[in-house]
Amino acid sequence: MRLMFLGDIVGRSGRQAVIQRLPGLVERYRLDFVVINGENSAGGFGITEEICQDVLDAGADVVTLGNHSWDQREALVFIERQPRLLRPVNYPAGTPGRGANLFVARNGARVLVMNVMGRIYMDALDDPFAAVARQLDACPLGEQCDAVVIDMHAEATSEKQALGHFVDGRASLVVGTHTHVPTADHMILPGGTAYMSDAGMCGDYDSVLGMDKEEPVQRFTSKIPRSRFEPANGEATLSGVCVEIDEMTGLATDVAPLRLGGKLAPALPGFW
Amino acid sequence: MRLMFLGDIVGRSGRQAVIQRLPGLVERYRLDFVVINGENSAGGFGITEEICQDVLDAGADVVTLGNHSWDQREALVFIERQPRLLRPVNYPAGTPGRGANLFVARNGARVLVMNVMGRIYMDALDDPFAAVARQLDACPLGEQCDAVVIDMHAEATSEKQALGHFVDGRASLVVGTHTHVPTADHMILPGGTAYMSDAGMCGDYDSVLGMDKEEPVQRFTSKIPRSRFEPANGEATLSGVCVEIDEMTGLATDVAPLRLGGKLAPALPGFW
Amino acid sequence: MRLMFLGDIVGRSGRQAVIQRLPGLVERYRLDFVVINGENSAGGFGITEEICQDVLDAGADVVTLGNHSWDQREALVFIERQPRLLRPVNYPAGTPGRGANLFVARNGARVLVMNVMGRIYMDALDDPFAAVARQLDACPLGEQCDAVVIDMHAEATSEKQALGHFVDGRASLVVGTHTHVPTADHMILPGGTAYMSDAGMCGDYDSVLGMDKEEPVQRFTSKIPRSRFEPANGEATLSGVCVEIDEMTGLATDVAPLRLGGKLAPALPGFW
Amino acid sequence: MRLMFLGDIVGRSGRQAVIQRLPGLVERYRLDFVVINGENSAGGFGITEEICQDVLDAGADVVTLGNHSWDQREALVFIERQPRLLRPVNYPAGTPGRGANLFVARNGARVLVMNVMGRIYMDALDDPFAAVARQLDACPLGEQCDAVVIDMHAEATSEKQALGHFVDGRASLVVGTHTHVPTADHMILPGGTAYMSDAGMCGDYDSVLGMDKEEPVQRFTSKIPRSRFEPANGEATLSGVCVEIDEMTGLATDVAPLRLGGKLAPALPGFW
Ligand SMILES: [Fe+2]
Ligand SMILES: [Fe+2]
Ligand SMILES: [Fe+2]
Ligand SMILES: [Fe+2]
Ligand SMILES: [Fe+2]
Ligand SMILES: [Fe+2]
Ligand SMILES: [Fe+2]
Ligand SMILES: [Fe+2]
Repeated sequence: MRLMFLGDIVGRSGRQAVIQRLPGLVERYRLDFVVINGENSAGGFGITEEICQDVLDAGADVVTLGNHSWDQREALVFIERQPRLLRPVNYPAGTPGRGANLFVARNGARVLVMNVMGRIYMDALDDPFAAVARQLDACPLGEQCDAVVIDMHAEATSEKQALGHFVDGRASLVVGTHTHVPTADHMILPGGTAYMSDAGMCGDYDSVLGMDKEEPVQRFTSKIPRSRFEPANGEATLSGVCVEIDEMTGLATDVAPLRLGGKLAPALPGFW
Repeated sequence: MRLMFLGDIVGRSGRQAVIQRLPGLVERYRLDFVVINGENSAGGFGITEEICQDVLDAGADVVTLGNHSWDQREALVFIERQPRLLRPVNYPAGTPGRGANLFVARNGARVLVMNVMGRIYMDALDDPFAAVARQLDACPLGEQCDAVVIDMHAEATSEKQALGHFVDGRASLVVGTHTHVPTADHMILPGGTAYMSDAGMCGDYDSVLGMDKEEPVQRFTSKIPRSRFEPANGEATLSGVCVEIDEMTGLATDVAPLRLGGKLAPALPGFW
Repeated sequence: MRLMFLGDIVGRSGRQAVIQRLPGLVERYRLDFVVINGENSAGGFGITEEICQDVLDAGADVVTLGNHSWDQREALVFIERQPRLLRPVNYPAGTPGRGANLFVARNGARVLVMNVMGRIYMDALDDPFAAVARQLDACPLGEQCDAVVIDMHAEATSEKQALGHFVDGRASLVVGTHTHVPTADHMILPGGTAYMSDAGMCGDYDSVLGMDKEEPVQRFTSKIPRSRFEPANGEATLSGVCVEIDEMTGLATDVAPLRLGGKLAPALPGFW
Repeated sequence: MRLMFLGDIVGRSGRQAVIQRLPGLVERYRLDFVVINGENSAGGFGITEEICQDVLDAGADVVTLGNHSWDQREALVFIERQPRLLRPVNYPAGTPGRGANLFVARNGARVLVMNVMGRIYMDALDDPFAAVARQLDACPLGEQCDAVVIDMHAEATSEKQALGHFVDGRASLVVGTHTHVPTADHMILPGGTAYMSDAGMCGDYDSVLGMDKEEPVQRFTSKIPRSRFEPANGEATLSGVCVEIDEMTGLATDVAPLRLGGKLAPALPGFW
């Protein structure tokens, strides 16, 4: 089974790259399932219903979120009617939407997808380890589902790596998001779970986190805001990870980064 | 001019990889200058005089540090007599040792090397941007020196990227350390400075930050320390970045990651 | 009903003040119930079984903890056999000991006591608001119990105040601990809950947080540890809060600070 | 010499209390010098030129700021022409306005006033200890000035206490601001410097930090913003500290809290 995960879409440049390139990737690689983090897709802050639909139309099966989930307040409403949009599963009880859901891939596989937020240097939320364990217990890989994808939206590599090891053998993929920079540590953990600390962003990398670099640099040096943060509008790099999943076990047999377009060195999966 | 920078050496496994592989790399690539971050080389915490000497003997020209600089207290003393060991330049006035120094490479080039610490999610120190600017003003690229290497020891990608843009055109390389995970965003910024958000570590990647994974995972889940953190002892990956520097301008013409051995996908510079 | 709550006991000086003065206070004011935070009672870090017993013998009915709960590892064991020692209720499931318990006061009243930790600028734990609400739902004031005391061990005044308002009318007292400085904002909230942002510490106030001031000052200025933190050994001030609770409603009718001995201006309850 | 310092003015309710009560206090106590923190005086966020003038007209000699200095952007401009408005002295070089200034009190004394920001759990700024030391070296108490007042705008009590001890004997008063809750630890340190960890706020204490309590409580529990923060509009308590300063030494001979009006227990200096 062929799974692709793409990191945080940032602004118009990131959306355009997804809309223009994803359909071709789905076709070229005969992708069975695509997950994309969309927490910065609306001007860098949150997501709107229209943008969410555009991303799904381009070929995403699921859109995940993060600490910017509610920056566009309409997301609090339309997430209730959009089961393909997931917010962090460890938000407080009563939060609109859902943090995990079961989907059917193009090859018929049942895929459990989860979005969970780390707590190190992030907002105070409930335990991501316990939240993930509860979901895995309720829908174990190889029993209630055929693949498990976990988007760990977190700052610290220690917490991401620890979560990877924590679920090793119980998930198909643990991939980090949030730092907006792809890591080069894609690997298959000893128990068979594919892992990559951060998928990077789908955005313009001649920037600071996908935002025009001038304002962030001057804020770091002067400590005074001059203007709003605006997404950088150079060509985006699509950035993410490709995983070949064994349909019998739900575990990963191959993992490779995907980087396409824009400023970063290109990378395509050699095994497909 | 051929420059190599390697990320944080973690424990015995990381030291062994450096000692065994670096001499061959220096020879194979005819490296002119090598910088290695050594803040975790002594059992994961700090550096000793003996280890520092071993790393220099293996072919490093300079060893940099970070938030773990003084974990081995002898470093406070021997750093005064070891000009090739640098601690963060933005430590308080009066801190032992130095944060920047000028060295002569094997090709005769004068190389300014700086170690600076970020402040986002890190200890409270003086402004890294101002500290770096002061050094660059005192020893400008193309005038008092032929190459400038900045090790930005920091957690947040935003701060690292902002520093890269801040010195773009005034440094040969800005490379991050501290997250212990290599990033795949090596690039040459518009002004000619090579950039990579994190060099990764020289350590065992089947771990949490190079440390045996059991204790970190159980601390995240139980919030109770059971034992000390110990370095993981599987085979280390050497991880870092290679930069070809134009001897006329001091700016970068090529940049590529280096990853060798251990769990990570290998990467070697294609341009040498 | 007469309740006294004393803040974090720091080191030998704090313990001596409690042991020497508390019996007299219990007698003089005919206290019905006494709660003391003991998280720094053993050399500034944690608590031992012997010290816990000494504090109970001096007149405390309950000892609460905080982020230093397990600094003395024996606490992980003996807390299981000591129902009068409470650790934060929002620690992960499976943590030794308990975070809330029901006790009988000297006047026969059933008192629910809870220890809960804030998350702002503190370690990542589960939601203190939800954790407290669960306890209050299980044992509502005026039904299953006659008084409710909540020790909110937290850094930020915003989080403490918010918790106070959150439970206003459902608890007899919400009192903060952890900053080691008494606040002067004791009041009865509109719903009848007595509130004080921080009880202060039972320790020597010519210090930094009850610890000898030399090492903290030099760490702030030099960023280099020179020696261990040691409790200051000047005379301690007992610091806390006194609450008169209406036996019919379980709500507060009077609240006043208590400060006795040492460097701080003395304060005694005028209403007893 | 009679000095009064009042903590952060929050919103209209805080301003009204200052404007209505301060002139009477100046007269009643024949105050020689008054400093007020005004960082939240404009709707809870920053200060305007008009509000600054109103506070000065009411009897303040100096208005200090903090992390909210620039919430009203006009402050970046008018601070340049208002020498009685101070922003933190450890802001980056080039920041508009000044962080310390020398004033003449009504008794003719030369008073050095400084505003400095802590770094623990606060924004990353330059070293407050070094910044304060530089000012004190340039204008030593008993030589270039007759009194020194330091407003330490900080979150952590440890950093405030450490600064107090660091300057003990070199300043007349070190008083904290920012937590919006008065502490009860006013004292004269061994070297003669009056100290109080936090002056509290001039605002409505039936609130969260002076802001209407509903939104903060629901944000803590739901993690979703519903509306903007608005200042609470109940009657404000004036909160601060009074210091009697020896005109020969510049050191403190008496210190006492001031709390007047609103929800807090009243406190007036007994020694005047
Ligand atoms: Fe993002
Ligand atoms: Fe994010
Ligand atoms: Fe490191
Ligand atoms: Fe580090
Ligand atoms: Fe404490
Ligand atoms: Fe504490
Ligand atoms: Fe304030
Ligand atoms: Fe503030």
